[in-house]
Amino acid sequence: MTLTEALPITDLNACCTPILREPMGADAAEKLARSLKALADPARLRLLSIVASHDDAEACVCDLTEPLGLSQPTVSHHLKVLVDAGYLSREKRGTWAYYSLTPDALDSVSGLISEL
Amino acid sequence: MTLTEALPITDLNACCTPILREPMGADAAEKLARSLKALADPARLRLLSIVASHDDAEACVCDLTEPLGLSQPTVSHHLKVLVDAGYLSREKRGTWAYYSLTPDALDSVSGLISEL
Repeated sequence: MTLTEALPITDLNACCTPILREPMGADAAEKLARSLKALADPARLRLLSIVASHDDAEACVCDLTEPLGLSQPTVSHHLKVLVDAGYLSREKRGTWAYYSLTPDALDSVSGLISEL
Repeated sequence: MTLTEALPITDLNACCTPILREPMGADAAEKLARSLKALADPARLRLLSIVASHDDAEACVCDLTEPLGLSQPTVSHHLKVLVDAGYLSREKRGTWAYYSLTPDALDSVSGLISEL
């Protein structure tokens, strides 16, 4: 049996519904996937949420270790991933490092997901 | 030198900025991280975007393999991840399987990110 016998031409056409707009391109998908990988971890989501819950969306590193029940090096690793991905910025002031939410970083990713 | 000498009590207090609301809990963070892991892949983002670009947010599997330049088994694997995570639903009609965007699934994840 040939392919034409197995799948009448009307079936071949029927499978193609019209495209209404241009889908996301390869470069944009790579970039968004990288941003989402940095977010896709429960400890990192909680760290961002703790920073966002503080006054001025800024928290001292000393406020970020205890609530998660993770070791300080593990928390530091997660914070570095979030800084590298652009969700947080880090500033050393006196004894402590302070982490601030980057304005619009989360809204930007959230908007790109909504527009998929 | 003791800790008290190294860090005057005013500095210790200065590190603690007030919390304005309850941060995300462990269970919610686990759940959102799982949803984001399913999204955090360029091929899966493009598949969702292609489905969303079609009329009625539904596309035949035959429309999903060619644009990505990936093998059919690889595309099938990514589609299964998206179905399992609740972003797509799958329906077999005649010769072809059709994938539809689950209403509100992307908006729900997007909203949770905005509210972090």
